[in-house]
Amino acid sequence: MRKITAEGLGTALLLAAVVGSGIMGDRLAQGNVAIALLANTIATSATLAALILTFGPISGSHLNPAVTLADAGSGGLPWKEVPGYVAAQIIGAVLGVAAAHVMFGLPLYSISHHSRSGFSQIFSEFVATFGLLAVVCGCSRFRPHSVAYAVGAYITGAYWFTASTSFANPAVTVARSLTGTFSGIAPTDAPSFIAAQLLGAAAATLLFRWLAPKGEQSRA
Amino acid sequence: MRKITAEGLGTALLLAAVVGSGIMGDRLAQGNVAIALLANTIATSATLAALILTFGPISGSHLNPAVTLADAGSGGLPWKEVPGYVAAQIIGAVLGVAAAHVMFGLPLYSISHHSRSGFSQIFSEFVATFGLLAVVCGCSRFRPHSVAYAVGAYITGAYWFTASTSFANPAVTVARSLTGTFSGIAPTDAPSFIAAQLLGAAAATLLFRWLAPKGEQSRA
Amino acid sequence: MRKITAEGLGTALLLAAVVGSGIMGDRLAQGNVAIALLANTIATSATLAALILTFGPISGSHLNPAVTLADAGSGGLPWKEVPGYVAAQIIGAVLGVAAAHVMFGLPLYSISHHSRSGFSQIFSEFVATFGLLAVVCGCSRFRPHSVAYAVGAYITGAYWFTASTSFANPAVTVARSLTGTFSGIAPTDAPSFIAAQLLGAAAATLLFRWLAPKGEQSRA
Amino acid sequence: MRKITAEGLGTALLLAAVVGSGIMGDRLAQGNVAIALLANTIATSATLAALILTFGPISGSHLNPAVTLADAGSGGLPWKEVPGYVAAQIIGAVLGVAAAHVMFGLPLYSISHHSRSGFSQIFSEFVATFGLLAVVCGCSRFRPHSVAYAVGAYITGAYWFTASTSFANPAVTVARSLTGTFSGIAPTDAPSFIAAQLLGAAAATLLFRWLAPKGEQSRA
Repeated sequence: MRKITAEGLGTALLLAAVVGSGIMGDRLAQGNVAIALLANTIATSATLAALILTFGPISGSHLNPAVTLADAGSGGLPWKEVPGYVAAQIIGAVLGVAAAHVMFGLPLYSISHHSRSGFSQIFSEFVATFGLLAVVCGCSRFRPHSVAYAVGAYITGAYWFTASTSFANPAVTVARSLTGTFSGIAPTDAPSFIAAQLLGAAAATLLFRWLAPKGEQSRA
Repeated sequence: MRKITAEGLGTALLLAAVVGSGIMGDRLAQGNVAIALLANTIATSATLAALILTFGPISGSHLNPAVTLADAGSGGLPWKEVPGYVAAQIIGAVLGVAAAHVMFGLPLYSISHHSRSGFSQIFSEFVATFGLLAVVCGCSRFRPHSVAYAVGAYITGAYWFTASTSFANPAVTVARSLTGTFSGIAPTDAPSFIAAQLLGAAAATLLFRWLAPKGEQSRA
Repeated sequence: MRKITAEGLGTALLLAAVVGSGIMGDRLAQGNVAIALLANTIATSATLAALILTFGPISGSHLNPAVTLADAGSGGLPWKEVPGYVAAQIIGAVLGVAAAHVMFGLPLYSISHHSRSGFSQIFSEFVATFGLLAVVCGCSRFRPHSVAYAVGAYITGAYWFTASTSFANPAVTVARSLTGTFSGIAPTDAPSFIAAQLLGAAAATLLFRWLAPKGEQSRA
Repeated sequence: MRKITAEGLGTALLLAAVVGSGIMGDRLAQGNVAIALLANTIATSATLAALILTFGPISGSHLNPAVTLADAGSGGLPWKEVPGYVAAQIIGAVLGVAAAHVMFGLPLYSISHHSRSGFSQIFSEFVATFGLLAVVCGCSRFRPHSVAYAVGAYITGAYWFTASTSFANPAVTVARSLTGTFSGIAPTDAPSFIAAQLLGAAAATLLFRWLAPKGEQSRA
C-alpha cells in the first residue's frame, strides 16, 4: 500500500510540474516558444530527478507504466504488483493535472486540441522511450544511485531532440490529453503515442537483457 | 550557538540570492518576465543547493521554519532548540534582503506592492511546501547525502509549476514583504501564505511518518 | 561485441541529441541564435552525461574516436579493439543524424553549407578537444565516478567559450557534415576540424601522462 | 611543479571560459543582456565545476589567490608554496584571456572601458567572495567530494545576485582588465575589487575557523 501511494503521489507531482510549468512558461514568454519550452524542460526534469530521489527508496519511483512493465519483465517487480502500480500512476497523473489547473485558476480539466500526429511524432515517441528505458536499464543495473540524475538529464535532452517533446510515458500521455494548455495532446492522438512508447520500451528492455545481463560485472 | 549562526548566515545568503537575482533579472530582461524568472530560478536553486552542502553538517541547514518544525515534530531537532533556529532564520532573512538592496544601490528596505492573493495563490503555497517537505523527509530518511541536490532540483521546478513561484518558507515570506522589487510580496498577503505553508508542511510530515517510518529499511 | 554495440548506440543517441535539439531550438527561437544555442547546449550536455552513465560500465562510453585513441595510447583499451570502437562510433553517429532528421520530418541526409573555417575556428577545436581530454584524463584517473558529470559540465561550457561551439569529436564532425540544419558543418571544413581535434587530444594526453601518472595517489 | 602547472592550466581554461562565453553570448543575444549573462553564467560555472573535478586531486584546484591564501592561513597549503600558486594563477589567467581572444579572432589583449565602481559594486565583491569562501571552507571541511558541485552552484547564483556579477577572484580580476569585451573591467576599478575580495575571503575564513573547527565531527 505504501508503494502504491508513493507511485500515485509521485506521478501526481510530476504531472503538476509538467502541466503547471507549461502554463507558467507559456504565460510569461511573450510568444517565444523556445523560452517557454526551456522553462518547461528545466522545471520538468529537475522535479523528476527530485521525485526519483524522494520516492525511489519506497517504491522504486517508476512514475511510468512503461518502466513498471519493463521492470516486471526483467524479473524485478512481481507481476501481481503491476496492476496496482499502473493504476496508481494513471490516477495520480490525472489528479496532478487537476492540481496544476487549480493552482493557475483554471477549470479542473479541459480537452486539448493540440494535434501531435504523423509519422515523425510517432517515431519520436519510439526513440524517446527507447532512450529512456536504455538509461533506466543501464543505470539501475550498474549504478543505481545515479538513476535519478541520469533520468533527469536524459529528459532534459529528450524534450528538445524529439519532435514530440518526449512524453515517453503512457500515464503522462493520458493525463496530458486532459489539459487544453501548453503541454496538452489531443485525445485522438494519445493511443498511437502510447503504442509507440510501449514498443520503444520493449525494444530497449530486450536489448539491455543482452547488453547488460544480470550475472555480469561492470567492465569499465 | 554555532548552529544558530549557521542558520542565520545561511538564510541571509539565501535571501540575498532570491532578492538580488530577482533585481538583476528584472533589470536585464527587457521586460520578458520568463527570462527574468528563469535567471531568478537558476540563481536561487543553485545557491540553495550550495548553502545546504555548506551548512548542512553544522546545523542541518534548514534555512526554513517549516523544515525546523517538521524536523522537531519527527523527533530530530530537540524542541528547545526550535525558537533559536526560527529566530535566526527570520533575522537572517531580513538582513539578507538588506544586503541585496545595498548591493544594487537601493534603500535598505522598501514595501512591496506585489499582490499575491486569491485561492490559487494560497493553494499553490500549500502544494509547494507539501512537495518540499516530501522531498526533505524522503531524502533525509533514506539518502541524506542527496538532500542538497534534491531540494535544489525541486525548487527549480516549483518556481515554475506553482502560480506563486513557490515561496514555501515562512522566513522567506516575511523577508520578501520588505522588498519592493521583482521578488516582493505585499505584507497583507504574507499571513495567508505562511498559513498555507505550515499546513502543507504538516500534511507532508504526517504522510511521510507513515510512508517512510523510522524503523524501515529502503525497499528499492 | 557488446562493447561495440554500446559505442554505436550511444554515439547514435548523442548525434540524435545534437542534431535534433539544434533543429528544435532553431525552429522555436524566432531568430534569436543565443536562445537556440542555449537549448542546443543544455540538451546536448545533459544527454551526453546520461549516456556516459548508461554505457560507461559496458564499454567505457567513449562515444568519441579521440577518447578511444587517448585511452589506447595510455594503456587502457587494447589497440586491437580500437578499429571496432572507431567504426562503431562513426557508423552510429551517421545513423543518429538520420534518426534526428526522421523525427523532424526531414530527408535522411542533407549537405551542410554551414562554413566553419579560418584559424580561430581551427584553434577553437584544438582548445576544445584539449580541454575535453584533460577532463577525461584527470577524472578517469582519480575520480572515475565523476566522469559523466565532469564531461557534461565541460561541454556545457565549451559550446559557448569556443568560436566553433566545440565539436571536439571526429565522429561527430563527420556526422554533422551530413545535416543541412543548425548544427551542420560544410564537408570541406571537416578535415581541418578533425586534425585540430586529434592534435588537441594528443597534447592533453601527453601532458596528463606527466601531470597525473599511473603510480600516483591523489594529492589533495 | 605539477601542482603549479595544474593551477596555471586550470586558471587559463577558466578565463578562456569566462571571457569566451561572454563574447559568444554578447554576439548572439541580439542586445538582450539577460540572455547573454545567462549563457555566460552557465558556461562559466559548468566549466569551473569540471576544472575542480579535473585538477582537484592534483593541486587542490584553487584557481584563485583568495582560496590559496585562505587554505594556507588554515594550515592547509604550506606558506612557501603560496607564491608559486598565486603566480601560476595570475599568469594562467592572463594567458587564458589571450586564448579566448584568439578563438574569437580578436587581438591578443585590449583595454576594458567597462566601469565597475561605486560602493554597491565593491560591497558586492565583498559579499561574493565571503560567500565563495564560506562554501569552500564548509564543504572542504566536511564534504570534500562535493566542493566542485557546491562551488559551481554557488557561482551560478552569485553571477546574478551580486551587482558586480561576482568576480570573487583576484587573478580573474587582473585578467579581465585585459579584455575590452563583455566580461571586462576597467583597470582603474580592479584594485578596489581585489581589496574587497581579500577582505571578504578573510572574513569567511576567520568565521569558519570558529564555525567548523578542525577537531569537530559533523553534527548533522
